[in-house]
Amino acid sequence: MIVRDARALTASEIRDLLKVADRPEIISFAGGVPDPSLFPLDAFNAIYADLTLDETAGRRSLQYSISEGLPALRQWIADDLASSGATRSIDNILITCGAQQGLDMLARLLLEPGREIVVEKPSYLGAMQAFSMRRPTYVGVNMDGDGPVIAELEAAFERGARIAYLAPDFQNPTGRSYTLERRLAVLEIARKYGAVILEDAAYSKLSYAGVVLPSLLALDETNGDPNAGTVIQLGTFSKTLVPALRIGWVCAPRPVIERLVLMQQASDLHVSTINQEVALRAARKLFPAHLDILRDAYRGKRDTMLAALGEFMPDTVSYTRPEGGMFIWLTLPENIDSRQLLEQALRDAKVAFVPGQAFFCDHTGRNTARLSFATEKTDRIRDGIERLALLIRRVHNQ
Amino acid sequence: MIVRDARALTASEIRDLLKVADRPEIISFAGGVPDPSLFPLDAFNAIYADLTLDETAGRRSLQYSISEGLPALRQWIADDLASSGATRSIDNILITCGAQQGLDMLARLLLEPGREIVVEKPSYLGAMQAFSMRRPTYVGVNMDGDGPVIAELEAAFERGARIAYLAPDFQNPTGRSYTLERRLAVLEIARKYGAVILEDAAYSKLSYAGVVLPSLLALDETNGDPNAGTVIQLGTFSKTLVPALRIGWVCAPRPVIERLVLMQQASDLHVSTINQEVALRAARKLFPAHLDILRDAYRGKRDTMLAALGEFMPDTVSYTRPEGGMFIWLTLPENIDSRQLLEQALRDAKVAFVPGQAFFCDHTGRNTARLSFATEKTDRIRDGIERLALLIRRVHNQ
Repeated sequence: MIVRDARALTASEIRDLLKVADRPEIISFAGGVPDPSLFPLDAFNAIYADLTLDETAGRRSLQYSISEGLPALRQWIADDLASSGATRSIDNILITCGAQQGLDMLARLLLEPGREIVVEKPSYLGAMQAFSMRRPTYVGVNMDGDGPVIAELEAAFERGARIAYLAPDFQNPTGRSYTLERRLAVLEIARKYGAVILEDAAYSKLSYAGVVLPSLLALDETNGDPNAGTVIQLGTFSKTLVPALRIGWVCAPRPVIERLVLMQQASDLHVSTINQEVALRAARKLFPAHLDILRDAYRGKRDTMLAALGEFMPDTVSYTRPEGGMFIWLTLPENIDSRQLLEQALRDAKVAFVPGQAFFCDHTGRNTARLSFATEKTDRIRDGIERLALLIRRVHNQ
Repeated sequence: MIVRDARALTASEIRDLLKVADRPEIISFAGGVPDPSLFPLDAFNAIYADLTLDETAGRRSLQYSISEGLPALRQWIADDLASSGATRSIDNILITCGAQQGLDMLARLLLEPGREIVVEKPSYLGAMQAFSMRRPTYVGVNMDGDGPVIAELEAAFERGARIAYLAPDFQNPTGRSYTLERRLAVLEIARKYGAVILEDAAYSKLSYAGVVLPSLLALDETNGDPNAGTVIQLGTFSKTLVPALRIGWVCAPRPVIERLVLMQQASDLHVSTINQEVALRAARKLFPAHLDILRDAYRGKRDTMLAALGEFMPDTVSYTRPEGGMFIWLTLPENIDSRQLLEQALRDAKVAFVPGQAFFCDHTGRNTARLSFATEKTDRIRDGIERLALLIRRVHNQ
């Protein structure tokens, strides 16, 4: 009785393998999660206390609320976007259950069986899981050091694709970012073909080099028209505050937001009222100081991992040097299958990572792997990379 | 570029009309929300304080968690179901963002364009909004005093329908319940045709007459097999604790749960971790005493509304006498269109209610209306019914 769309859902074998990665003896670079020791627990304690001691705000925070999301939270997000050069109003913003729900809702709005969607090679697995429920046709575009290869993007649009999902800042899984020139080129080509760009900005605030390039949303020319625009941006507090509140947002032209609000109403009514209120209070109270704390901590971990990779990895392994985010991307010698390597790493080296193949829409990338430096402590990061490097040297020489 | 499924979403004219219902001068029977003065705010204050003062539990509650939902919360729900006669394991339970997300996910699992789904006449509007995104064919079944008319249900199954959405306890919008005999008859006929029943149990705990009939889930014969069953039940804490946590659940045979977990993962990863933890602690701490507080309060409001209806309404108006839930259903004289009546009521009588037509899959029921007794205080309930009755008498005599 299960319909075809739902049959597109399949359990991940890798996920099953990685169930052991939580064990303390395993050094895990597999997670896509932030470091919980950086959660501002004391601030949350004070915010929950203030809120639940306030009869009016407390009861209001426990009641149903509108599907759009709390106006004050949407205003905070609009102000924050404006401060980064993207002038939008609260009517352009919908609160979602994490950025993941935004991806799912946009897939339900824009995709249908066979419709083409352009994705980076590699791309964020969670996005492709959301898209796949609509059974689209993926068009993969290769990346060079500056961003997606423009000739491939144009070829995709030329052949009829009109939707592209792109992550210009510290991408999950590679950590790569687009140059300013490539951002402008992407927008120009999208406008030429009337294509929509879904911009994933989940990691944008986690910049470690002091350089923040304008988002595609900020570069999109809307001339102040709330109904205009080529770019739909997805944002989240999961990486900058905490994931568990499940607060993300979509920033889009109004006609898109109006449809998504109706979809939200029909799909889960609204995002948790109290979580929205708490996220707003936390953002007001903690930003930007807390972001600096996160940047300092993750920058240190990234530096440790890069130093260890430089020290221990054989020259046959190349890796990205991300300026933000949580991930480093390994390209292993061609003869190494990273899925097999993972089994050996879990068993022999007690190290976990995510094999890269799942991030490729065309299932290439068998010799690639994603490493997260976010959760382990620096001494374990160094140890883990050393162990992994030893394993790779051994496997490669077999 | 918007796909056909998403074009099925339309804004509600009634919802726009009812935007004025929040004004203090309007006595509103329109809301479908619980009374916020009954929220256990002090208990929530203590629970949040305990949780965020606990380094381990606090940080864990702010992190990502598994798509299935917290095992301890699922165990609490399984134990609670068992205490009402439905023996299920935590593997039969998925936590959802309110019961609404359960409806949406089941629609995505089971419905596709043109596939038939049986609904009560009238039925819960929110469910039909979720179903309609899959563009099914509705088969409406009339209700008598004991539940759905069995001959009509059988005729629907006979013609090929295999899914029925039913609310046997204190239904939204009518407040009606099924008798035990009718519950058994519904199950028998569903089993005969191999049909799946989606049982909405949102209001089951709000019983005011001391009589609690077994749910369809409890009556379903699974012989302890976690993979077996005809009934999928949807539950929620929205009416018994608070709506804003957005904690609902689906209880279903394991093959269904396994699919839904993958869908949850792809659609919004999981329900807010901290909200699940808080709901669990609140349920452990407050139940069943808090349920008695709710029942006493809502029973009083229901009695007030029924007394006022008896005192003020003309004999040409009939209404339900619910033994639980939040709603009373009016059937007006045939010549009264409740949508027009609402406009007059908002303007002249300063009373709000929901016209009944939207609850009928076949858009009949123009002379019906839903009244909620949940949120207004008793003196305003009495005043509001008097004003509405006066208006109806005036309109009817025109």
